[in-house]
Amino acid sequence: MSTVADTRLLPGKTVRARILSEVSAYVNQVGRIGKLVSISIGNVPEVAVYVRNQARAASAVGVPFDQQLWDRSISQEVCQSLIREMNDDPDVLGIILQRPVPDHINVRALQAAIHPLKDVEGMNPASIGNIVYNDVAMAPCTAAAAVELIRETGLTMAGLEVVMVGHSEIVGKPVAMMLMAEGATVTVCHHMTRSVAMHSRRADVVVVAVGKAHLIGPDMIKPGAVVIDIGINHVPGPDGPVVVGDVQTDAVKEVAGWITPVPGGVGLVTVAILLRNAIRAHQQQRAAGWIR
Amino acid sequence: MSTVADTRLLPGKTVRARILSEVSAYVNQVGRIGKLVSISIGNVPEVAVYVRNQARAASAVGVPFDQQLWDRSISQEVCQSLIREMNDDPDVLGIILQRPVPDHINVRALQAAIHPLKDVEGMNPASIGNIVYNDVAMAPCTAAAAVELIRETGLTMAGLEVVMVGHSEIVGKPVAMMLMAEGATVTVCHHMTRSVAMHSRRADVVVVAVGKAHLIGPDMIKPGAVVIDIGINHVPGPDGPVVVGDVQTDAVKEVAGWITPVPGGVGLVTVAILLRNAIRAHQQQRAAGWIR
Repeated sequence: MSTVADTRLLPGKTVRARILSEVSAYVNQVGRIGKLVSISIGNVPEVAVYVRNQARAASAVGVPFDQQLWDRSISQEVCQSLIREMNDDPDVLGIILQRPVPDHINVRALQAAIHPLKDVEGMNPASIGNIVYNDVAMAPCTAAAAVELIRETGLTMAGLEVVMVGHSEIVGKPVAMMLMAEGATVTVCHHMTRSVAMHSRRADVVVVAVGKAHLIGPDMIKPGAVVIDIGINHVPGPDGPVVVGDVQTDAVKEVAGWITPVPGGVGLVTVAILLRNAIRAHQQQRAAGWIR
Repeated sequence: MSTVADTRLLPGKTVRARILSEVSAYVNQVGRIGKLVSISIGNVPEVAVYVRNQARAASAVGVPFDQQLWDRSISQEVCQSLIREMNDDPDVLGIILQRPVPDHINVRALQAAIHPLKDVEGMNPASIGNIVYNDVAMAPCTAAAAVELIRETGLTMAGLEVVMVGHSEIVGKPVAMMLMAEGATVTVCHHMTRSVAMHSRRADVVVVAVGKAHLIGPDMIKPGAVVIDIGINHVPGPDGPVVVGDVQTDAVKEVAGWITPVPGGVGLVTVAILLRNAIRAHQQQRAAGWIR
């Protein structure tokens, strides 16, 4: 029985604490800062949990957080015009559009309506385009959290062989582009890939964001590799449902050099990145002369 | 001696002709169409050749083409305001900003000033962001030309193993994302990649956009693979300078299943894509109610 902490687990908590303390120092230094507005459309219990976590982290670092719950029957036009008002309101630092939204709402159009300088979630197509141009001021939070956790290993990014499993717009593709910008060689695998294992077995870093419990086993990972698990899956456990990632964490831990746990890995860092994006929004709005 | 044409060469001419005839049919059907404005800032001989080719193709399909040459001492502010006027002018169908520009001009800011619905080169960060979201209405022309030539082989895109050599914003990354959207498994290699050959040798399709003459030799290509050569390099030849690609075309031809020649491959298709983007701009401006 070793008393040494398990260094193979990449600690979301440590990274989160470091980022939040940077944010807190910034907020203290500027004194007064505008508010983050969280928009939920219709009452969805899982969203409420997520919003509560964001509100708690914002409060810890001194960023005002305004939780708005809009009626589920609200029209697209009214949503657009409310968002436009927030774009123009100097007291609004950033806008968070919680998902899912009701079926009659076009979420992509609302994301595009959020001004890039207030897009703390990094979801506006223009924000995503800026990632392609290596301008990652406000990147999608989960993607940036994954990159931050890879950085935490201390490995040199340039030349790193990364396999990204999953090619979603909000995680897979932004992660791929952000890592390319750092000099990694990235392969993006997905449900049409002939053999994910053929790729993942040769990778220094495997990032997984698919949403399938236990998809990645130890036979798919090179010894010593980094495994970043972005999956959040609810599966039945002995004492009711439990949350697990896309990786067989216990088995893969025996092979991998580093692995992020679920829960306690990427998710913890994601909220911290949202708040780091908020201070970047503040810097950019200042530079643009929107606020003092 | 075979009298059969060399089927291993992927014919840029054929693809170009097909696209241009589609554009021509569209223009004939709508009758009157706005003009493409080409902006050159300062007189650069190589740009002039390129503009002349665009003008010739536009004329062939009935799209008015306005070649503007702005003085090299023009200010950024004046450029921005001239572009804004074109954004508002219903007679301007699309805006092409020729590169290079003088050092004092911020080309990225000008590209961002072109409205996405008039961005026929697909260079605005918002246009690039839309590629990430699989909305490839107006993609960067060279990237779209490469994809079009792969399609010409008749291979099934889903599951295709593609290695993109080069990770530039205007070619490598958009090609990667467009092919991911079609279901290919894409690896992006670049100057920091440990071994490009390790990747290229296992690929069904190798796309090269690096700008190094003869970089890719036959030992780097899997027998039967598709090789798309985007390089344009001027090298000394026996009778003066000649244009060659990034691939050792003659040698690789003996191994590859298909290969694009340089010149006569991707470049020929690129101009056709610009005009296809112009008709997409027309469709989108109509849908948005900007024009009848």
